[in-house]
Formats: sequence, structure tokens, C-alpha cells
Amino acid sequence: VTPPVAKSPVPLGRIAELVGGTVVGNPETEIRGISGIKEAGPGDITFVANPRYVPLLAETRASAAVVGPGVNSRHLPLVVVGNPDLAFAQVVALFGPEPVVAPVGVHPSAVVGKDVRLGERVAVMPLVVIDDGAEVGAGTALYPHVYVGRGARIGRDCILYAGVKVRERCLLGNRVIVHSNTVIGSDGFGYATVEGVHHKIPQVGIVQIDDDVEIGANVTIDRARFDRTHIMEGTKIDNLVQIAHNVTVGQRCVIVAQTAIAGSTRIGDNVVIAGQSGVDGHIEVGSGVRMAARSGVTKDVAPGRVVSGFPAQAHDRELKLQASLRRVPELLRTVRELAEEVARLRAKVEKGESSAEDH
Amino acid sequence: VTPPVAKSPVPLGRIAELVGGTVVGNPETEIRGISGIKEAGPGDITFVANPRYVPLLAETRASAAVVGPGVNSRHLPLVVVGNPDLAFAQVVALFGPEPVVAPVGVHPSAVVGKDVRLGERVAVMPLVVIDDGAEVGAGTALYPHVYVGRGARIGRDCILYAGVKVRERCLLGNRVIVHSNTVIGSDGFGYATVEGVHHKIPQVGIVQIDDDVEIGANVTIDRARFDRTHIMEGTKIDNLVQIAHNVTVGQRCVIVAQTAIAGSTRIGDNVVIAGQSGVDGHIEVGSGVRMAARSGVTKDVAPGRVVSGFPAQAHDRELKLQASLRRVPELLRTVRELAEEVARLRAKVEKGESSAEDH
Amino acid sequence: VTPPVAKSPVPLGRIAELVGGTVVGNPETEIRGISGIKEAGPGDITFVANPRYVPLLAETRASAAVVGPGVNSRHLPLVVVGNPDLAFAQVVALFGPEPVVAPVGVHPSAVVGKDVRLGERVAVMPLVVIDDGAEVGAGTALYPHVYVGRGARIGRDCILYAGVKVRERCLLGNRVIVHSNTVIGSDGFGYATVEGVHHKIPQVGIVQIDDDVEIGANVTIDRARFDRTHIMEGTKIDNLVQIAHNVTVGQRCVIVAQTAIAGSTRIGDNVVIAGQSGVDGHIEVGSGVRMAARSGVTKDVAPGRVVSGFPAQAHDRELKLQASLRRVPELLRTVRELAEEVARLRAKVEKGESSAEDH
Repeated sequence: VTPPVAKSPVPLGRIAELVGGTVVGNPETEIRGISGIKEAGPGDITFVANPRYVPLLAETRASAAVVGPGVNSRHLPLVVVGNPDLAFAQVVALFGPEPVVAPVGVHPSAVVGKDVRLGERVAVMPLVVIDDGAEVGAGTALYPHVYVGRGARIGRDCILYAGVKVRERCLLGNRVIVHSNTVIGSDGFGYATVEGVHHKIPQVGIVQIDDDVEIGANVTIDRARFDRTHIMEGTKIDNLVQIAHNVTVGQRCVIVAQTAIAGSTRIGDNVVIAGQSGVDGHIEVGSGVRMAARSGVTKDVAPGRVVSGFPAQAHDRELKLQASLRRVPELLRTVRELAEEVARLRAKVEKGESSAEDH
Repeated sequence: VTPPVAKSPVPLGRIAELVGGTVVGNPETEIRGISGIKEAGPGDITFVANPRYVPLLAETRASAAVVGPGVNSRHLPLVVVGNPDLAFAQVVALFGPEPVVAPVGVHPSAVVGKDVRLGERVAVMPLVVIDDGAEVGAGTALYPHVYVGRGARIGRDCILYAGVKVRERCLLGNRVIVHSNTVIGSDGFGYATVEGVHHKIPQVGIVQIDDDVEIGANVTIDRARFDRTHIMEGTKIDNLVQIAHNVTVGQRCVIVAQTAIAGSTRIGDNVVIAGQSGVDGHIEVGSGVRMAARSGVTKDVAPGRVVSGFPAQAHDRELKLQASLRRVPELLRTVRELAEEVARLRAKVEKGESSAEDH
Repeated sequence: VTPPVAKSPVPLGRIAELVGGTVVGNPETEIRGISGIKEAGPGDITFVANPRYVPLLAETRASAAVVGPGVNSRHLPLVVVGNPDLAFAQVVALFGPEPVVAPVGVHPSAVVGKDVRLGERVAVMPLVVIDDGAEVGAGTALYPHVYVGRGARIGRDCILYAGVKVRERCLLGNRVIVHSNTVIGSDGFGYATVEGVHHKIPQVGIVQIDDDVEIGANVTIDRARFDRTHIMEGTKIDNLVQIAHNVTVGQRCVIVAQTAIAGSTRIGDNVVIAGQSGVDGHIEVGSGVRMAARSGVTKDVAPGRVVSGFPAQAHDRELKLQASLRRVPELLRTVRELAEEVARLRAKVEKGESSAEDH
């Protein structure tokens, strides 16, 4: 392994300046690299964003750490900032490996069709195919084996990693990142079934991806039947997610790996969907909704709700339900004992009655 | 967005003739485009196939709608047909965007091996690789970055979208559609484990896909250990589905996104498997079975059954079970109160006994 | 279909010698092919590794079978061995189809960057792209449309099937097999969210895959934030699996299709994870743990435990819980009847009391 290695030592005080933080401890501490808190060694700066890792400050071999407000340590000097995740991203730029710079220009092995418009500084790498009438904005990088279909339009400063396929007429905004082997614009899954035979329903709409969206690897986003499947500005989608035809996903949503959203569903803004969840078709999920991992959402969800379970319900009710269900084995015993107790009581009462009758 | 736009206006009566339907309202209504019922504007024709959207006829801005038998509207003229989905597919052909026509011929950048047989009118697009001894039937289109392995045979009038990989010796029938980045014929997942070490079991069988099958994007269908993994005629498979080695899927099945079918399982004809389901290995699922979304099927299912849940059972029993489970929190309270009541009763009865003894 | 066909007949005794087994029956039986037990015909040798298929020995049309110790049959001659799966793999080599041999050399259509080191006997097939500074070990085969990113290192005798993408600086050991369209080294899914806007956290680590790992088709393995995502020696991963950033998977694990492992989780050695499971982030799963299909593991699991369910718990407790839950509909009835019985009893007791008071 070749972990990111410092190019030259940087005093901790300079790092604090860079990220707008405050040094607690010796600002002359020399930093030579970055690392995770468990893996760090002498000379490394690390960070704690997740509170569960605060105790590891006592054990880490790092020489310094970037932390959030209110975190203290007797073990190593700290740089205290508002948002350690964000601050550390800047530190990474200082110490991390040389970033890969996409080579500007069209590689001679790329196949570019007729009436294709390429912006300035595009990088069209080896064996890319751009079909007729497509458009690629300035500063965009297309890695090897990317396919841009007929009449598709990719905005400025996008990165499409190796093997991404964008079908005809789909639209990508600016600064969109798409990871390898993701498919944008495959046909929606629609058939008219007559006497058991499935007749394909043409899917002539498109996929529209707005600015600043990032899409993971091996994701599938189907084109609409007509109109569009729409992913709005700033939304982030993880690997192996399925977005069916005619779905709308609002702005700044987060959709974690292996989730599926069925056809024609509308997701609001700032919705967070944890991994392996499923959302049924033709429903509305309000803005600000949060779904726990493996949620199976089967009906509309009002804005701001937190849901979990399958079928999903309010998260606190689901937690209560799950806790109750875990008491069922004990409940079965209790009820059996209670039934025996009642039988004994009845026997006594009936005996009492008959002796009373004996009077 | 550039939604499908009418080339020239068409009177509603002519559309009704085209789809074999009946106009209710003004047959002279001019139609200039198609759209979904929520997105439609003046001049558009829309449709209602799903009964849940019938109320939207009162709100749509469309100028006409294609509907099924028994649907009425005071708001706009209708074309009434037997199957609105099927009929509307024909209307789409009239108004939809120019379909992409695959360019016939072998692009000079494609790499075609020895002893490859290509039928008439094949379209072998840029950067396709066809390995030695493979065969591609007449009228078939291979989009960029498709790979056809050694000795594989693809039938007539198929479409393999960009990035599809078909491994050696696999067989595809006629009119098969495979969406981007799907993999057909990867090795089955089989190991002989000896003292904790997993030794690979050779997977020398094939995948056979019969006529009129459609397979979504980023699907994986593994080759058999020997013999074949078999997808029969007319079956439709959605995105991100996993079909393991030696599975047989019968005719005209529908398998929705992110479902997995484990090794050696046999699925009958006309089976419908909703999304995110799992079917265990080495089992038999009878013809006509329907599985609800997220079913986890762990044993044989008799023909015609509707199942759901995990482990899956008859759908009506599962519904009853789920309803019962939601009453458990209340049941816990009821039983606690009942136990208190019994305790009080017992106290009374015992007091009665002792006072009786006092007599 | 063209199932594997015998090149020339081989007597059963010779097969027994090859696999180190014992013939029970006529060692002169002529074998001409291999097949699964259900599909086999005269002249075929088949095998039984899974005990559930032993009864099929009475029905198979095969001429002989490879079986484990203690299996008998009056119907056909047997070759008895310690591990039928392993033994049959050798028989397959005898009768199976000609294996595909990767053509040694660099195809002229491949694009190889600067400072690339290629070992002896590498096969760089058509339209492969190897970026600057990458390294490919001796005997390794790169199928069409493989991409090896800048500075990535692939060991000896690996097979990367068509469409595999390996991003910059990732490391693969020796004898690693990766199936088509799998992505190694895509960015981990990490954002710093400030006022609802998600800022990308750079992912500058790598993925490291050790010797003898096999990875299925359309798998995604994300690169670490820094340091590495690590898959250790001898582990086998099935199709459509998601491994998030900073995960460590130990040696000789088996991870079945459509499973996801969330970020920073550590999996021990010899762990078996059945299909469609999910493992939460930032947890530890001990060596030898087994997870049943569709497990949802939300917290640390001690070594050697068998778990199932969601949230996952000890498998025997989960089984008991599931059995209890299925009794809830009956329990609801029982409690209702019990409540009625108690009400009747109370009425009697109170009547007894009042009549006692009447005394």
C-alpha cells in the first residue's frame, strides 16, 4: 500500500489557518501526512467527525487531529473547526496524492459522430463514443469507454467515469459526476399485457439530471415513458441504486446504495433514503423525509417524517412495534400461565358455588 | 427539456381510427403532441391505464385522452379502447421523437474476430468486439462497447445496448433486447470448500435466452455449471436483477428490479416477481405464481399462488399475520391488565375460601 | 443448445483414478460426457454433492455418478470420493468444452499509456485501455473494454473479464478473477452537509484486493477516503455486491449476491454472508460468523456466531422469535376468550360475594 504521503512537513498552525480553525496545543507540530484515526502514525494529522470516534483520540498514534467544537484531548494537539468533515477535505488537498488530471483534447481512438458540439477544454479519452448531434460542455471529462447517445447533452465541468452509458436525448447539467458503468436513459420497464403476452410500451421520454448531482457506480436510471425522469440539483446517489421511469427526485436528496424507487414516484427536496430501501410506485414522499435503512415505503409520506420498517411507518412507532414483537415469546408463556391460573380459579369458584348450593 | 412535440396536428378521429377506438366528444379536436396526464398541456393527448389516475381527467390540461371501457369525462374528449396502454403505444409512434435507427454495417473501429458470421442488415457500431466464431443474426443492432464472446450466437432483430457483455458460447434468440452494461454468461458462484479454502468449480455451461425476452440494465445472468441457465420466450427482466447459475425462468414471466434468484431454482411460466424479492436456490415455483414486492421465497410454491413476506407464505395469510402483529403492543397491555384482574379475583376467591373456612 | 460433449469415451475406472476415488460397479462403463443429475442422459457421468439430490440417483438417466462417502445406489455405478464437488471439477476438465485461451500479446486496438509495465505472457485484448504508470503482471488476461486506471497495479495470472473498470492507484494481487462490468475504486459516498448542501469529501484512498480473490459481475467496491478498502486473500464475492469505502473483508470470506457492506465496517476471516444481506457501517463482524440470507446486521457480531433477521440476532433466537410471531393471530383469539372467561368468573365471584354479604 502507498498511503497518501506528505510532500513536505507543514506546521499545524498553518493548517489551522487554511481551514479557519483554532489550534489547541503546539502550533509548531510538524504534519507530514493524513490518515484515518485507527491507521494514523506519527507525523499524520487525522480527524473526528463522528462522535463515536472521540474516544479513539486517546489511542491514536496521530500527531494531531481536526475536531468539532467542544472536543478536547490531553493526548494530542487539536485543530477545532465548525465542520471537521469539510475542513479535513481541505487538508487532504494539501497532503493527498496528486489528483488525476483529465488530459484535455479528443483522443484519436475516440469515435465522435456528426454535428457533435464539444466545449472548450473537454477531455474525450480513449475509446469514448459520442453519437451524432450530442453536446459536451466546456471542461467536462469523459473517461475511456463512455458512450454519449444521439442528441444527448452533457453540461460543463462534468466527470463521467469509465464505462458510463448515456442514452439518446438525455440531459445532464453542470458539475455532474457519474461513476463507472452507470446507465442513464435505459428504457422504462413497461408492458401492456394482453392474454399473458407482454407488449413493449415505447419509452420515448428522457432522463434529466440537474447541476451538482453525483451518481455512484452501476446505478440505473430509466428514461420516462414520455416527459422525463428527473433528478434535481445537488442530489447524491450511491452505487447500485435503481430509479425507475418517470420518477422525480428533488434537490439535495441523499439516496444510499441498493435502494430502488419505483415508477412515477415523486420524492421531495432534502430527502434522505438509507441503504437497501424500496419506495413503491406512484406515491409522494414529502421534503425532508428520512427513511431508515431497509425501509419499504408503500404509501405517501408527509414532509419531515422519519419512517422505517416494511411497510414503513413513523420511526418511533416502528421502534415500539419491534420492541413489542421481541416480547412475544415471553407473552406466549405469560398467557399460557394466565390461562392455567384462570382454570384453577374457575375450579375453585365452581367448587365454592357447589358447596354454597350444598348449604 | 424537449418533450416529444407534434410534427403536424392530427384530428382526434384519425387517432381513434389508428388505434381501433371510439371517439366520445369532438372528433375534430386537433392533437399536436403526447404527454403524461399530470404534465400534459393544450394540444396534447394523454391516457389513463391505471384506474387510480381516472380522477385526474377532471384536472388535466390535455386536449384529449385515451381511456379504457367504462371511463367517462365531462372535461375533455376521449378515445375509448380495450387496452389504453397498448393503444397509446401506437399514438406515441405518431407523435414521439424520431426513433434512433441503428446504422447498418460494421463500423471500422469495431473488432471482429475470425470465423464470425454476420446476418444481413446487422449494425455493428463503433468499438464493438465480436470474438472468434460468434454469430449475429440479420437485423440485429450491437451498440458501442458491446462484447460478444467466442462462439456466442445472437439471433435476428435483437438490440444489445451499449456496454452489454455476452460471454463465450451463450445463446440469444430473436428479437431479444438487452439494456446497457448487462452481463450474460459470467461464471456461476460455485466453490468446493476444503479446510476453509474455496476451490473454484469450473462453470462450463452456458446461458440461453429465448425469443422476445427483454433484459434491463446492469443485470447479471450467470452461466450454468454445465448445461444451461435458461430464460424462456417472452420473459421480461428489469434492472439490477441477479439470476444465478442453472436457474430456469419459464415463458412470459415478469421479474422486477433488484430481485435475485438463487442457483438451480426453476420458475414456471407467467410468474410475476415484484421488486427486491429473493428466491432461494434449488426450489420450484409453479406457473402463474405472483410474488409481492420484497418477498423472500424459501420453499416450493404451487402453481397460481400469490405469496408475500419473508419467509413468504400465502398473501392473504401474510396480510392477516401483519395485521395481527401490529396489534401486539395493544395485546401486551391487555394481557398485563388481565393478569392484574386475575390477581385481584384470586385474592377475592382466596379471601372467600378462608372466610368460608372460618364458618 | 450444445452441451459439453465427450471427445472420446473414457472408462469409469480411469475417471476414478483421475480423481482418486473408488469405483462401486463396473469400471469398464464408458463415459462420454458430463451433465447435471436431472439433465443427464446415457453416456453421461453426473455427481451428487448436495444430500438433497441423493434420491435422484434412482431416477437419473446418467451412466455413472461421482458421490461422497456413504452414498449407495442400486441403479448405476458410482465413483466414491471425499469431496464430490472438487472431484467433479477435474472430470469437467476432461469432458467440458475447450476452455477459452486468452491470446497472449497486446491487441493493436488497445490503448496503452506511458510508463506502463506489462509482464510476460499478458493478454491485452481489443479496446482495453491501460492508463499511464499502470502495471499488469505476467500471465494476466485483460478482456475487451477493460480499463486500468493511472498507476493501478494488477498482479500475475489474473483474469479481468470484459468491461471491468479499475480506477487509479488500486492494487490487485495474483490470481484475482473479476467478472464483467465490475467497478473497483469508485469514490466512496461521503459528503459534509452544511445547511442542507452536500459538499463532496475527497476520496483519495485506494482499493486493495489480495491474492486468489474472485469478484462477480456488476459489483462495486469503493475506494477509501484515505488508506484503503481491503479485500483479503481467498475471499469470494458474488454478483451485484456493494462494498463501501474503508471496509475490510478478511480472508476466505464468501459474500453472496446483492449484499451490501456499509462504510468502515470490518469483517473477519472465513465469514459467510448469504444473499441480499446488509451490514451496517462502523461495526466489527468476527471471524467465522455466518449470516443467513437477508440478514440486516446492525451491531458488532462476536466470532463464530450464526445470525439472521433484521435487526439480526442469534439465529436460534431469531427462529424461535419467528415461530412465536406466527402464533400471534391464535394468541389474539386466546386472549380474547380468556378475557371473556375472566369477566364471567368475576361476575360469579361478585355474585358470590353479594350473596355472602346477604347472609
